[in-house]
Amino acid sequence: MRIARFSIDGTVGFGVVEADPSPGGEPVLDIIKGHPFAEFERSGRRVPLSKVRLLPPVLPSKIVAVARNYAEHAGELGNDVPDVPMTFFKPSTSVVGHGDQVAYPSISSDVHHEAELAVVIGRMCRDVPRERAREVILGYTCANDLTARDVQRREGQWARAKGFDNSCPLGPWIETDLDPSDLAVMCTVNGEQRQLGRTGEMVRSVEDLIVHITESMTLLPQDVILTGTPAGVGPLHVGDEVAVTIEGIGTLTNKVVKRD
Amino acid sequence: MRIARFSIDGTVGFGVVEADPSPGGEPVLDIIKGHPFAEFERSGRRVPLSKVRLLPPVLPSKIVAVARNYAEHAGELGNDVPDVPMTFFKPSTSVVGHGDQVAYPSISSDVHHEAELAVVIGRMCRDVPRERAREVILGYTCANDLTARDVQRREGQWARAKGFDNSCPLGPWIETDLDPSDLAVMCTVNGEQRQLGRTGEMVRSVEDLIVHITESMTLLPQDVILTGTPAGVGPLHVGDEVAVTIEGIGTLTNKVVKRD
Repeated sequence: MRIARFSIDGTVGFGVVEADPSPGGEPVLDIIKGHPFAEFERSGRRVPLSKVRLLPPVLPSKIVAVARNYAEHAGELGNDVPDVPMTFFKPSTSVVGHGDQVAYPSISSDVHHEAELAVVIGRMCRDVPRERAREVILGYTCANDLTARDVQRREGQWARAKGFDNSCPLGPWIETDLDPSDLAVMCTVNGEQRQLGRTGEMVRSVEDLIVHITESMTLLPQDVILTGTPAGVGPLHVGDEVAVTIEGIGTLTNKVVKRD
Repeated sequence: MRIARFSIDGTVGFGVVEADPSPGGEPVLDIIKGHPFAEFERSGRRVPLSKVRLLPPVLPSKIVAVARNYAEHAGELGNDVPDVPMTFFKPSTSVVGHGDQVAYPSISSDVHHEAELAVVIGRMCRDVPRERAREVILGYTCANDLTARDVQRREGQWARAKGFDNSCPLGPWIETDLDPSDLAVMCTVNGEQRQLGRTGEMVRSVEDLIVHITESMTLLPQDVILTGTPAGVGPLHVGDEVAVTIEGIGTLTNKVVKRD
């Protein structure tokens, strides 16, 4: 099931994305009664997907991200795979959705794309044992862990380099029925392929990361884990259209614009 | 004015801390109608401070902290003062209040206290010019930036080392009428002084930090900035009572306990 958060005519809601079975039909949203992180049902009221604005599918209290989780990407930046996962936070103020513009931050002149599988947490959890890790996941979406590479190199800790406004596009929706263990992850810039990898290459699996993070901290419903990026990261420029596509989920597209 | 958040008989509210003018009188809370981050007034309904449970005075969407902002502390850990401030996040799930127990995290055997002046943001802001930095501040409180020093050394990025549950005691209340430029900051463990410094020794002032952070990201009402710790950090053990006292604010006390 694909769960999208959307706005239409000033109203915000969630809906289940469905194919329209009629010939040439466009996808529709079946509007949800209730909240997808609790009990909900489909209302049967449908709106065409093309008529809504998609919003970030979650409003995370925190985003926990992992660095250097694909060996080839670690290598391209001259780093080793760390013995212990390197985890960092992105704040809620960094989140934008599919189709939103990304304003180029004034603090950087070297913003890179990083396509990543994002795990959406479905229930409050702590000290999750590996064999129960899948139970705390509501689903998966696409993420772009935008990184001010120049700031990252200078500052040692990455709050500004990876936490600037608009630095975490998420979307287009949450796919709840998916095996995350070996999915293609791709990034294109202006239609040209830049990153391509498979989640099967991840040094630490989704389950490993949930165990590792929840050893230390509680995850809340709507919290997000970013699982690292495959090789091929590179700069974005004002005017670029950057797209993250993950097999079985869909495509998250954002345009880079000049800040007002 | 001192604004506390509290619970009594299952109800949560905010109140203004007042001295009781009667001889031998104890401090009381004048309960607030409205919300301290918006319009509010005092109700005139008073409860003795000793009858309530103090809660963390804010529910921050994010806590932005700065490392190595006192030269003597940077030196005691063998670090230089960085050319650019090192900023990192602590998550909302790390926050506890005055009097709350701090469970010793299972991932560490070397948790250190770090007494810090905490700045509570009062209004949404971005790109704040230095001369207007004070305008975005609601007030100040005490913080203990608890740090799993062993994990910090191993992991490179500090999400687990500084983001574990209970790692951010805040309180006891927000003092709104305070000049933060030269206040004594003290930490005691079991009544014995461990840290003592003055905010006047900070490498970057409160105003500098607001400018630096908001160059990159939006701050929201209730967000918190931790301004760094003076020299004297050291380990805590189960059973310890750790207290952060800041001149003009008060004392934030927490007991370290074994995790269940």
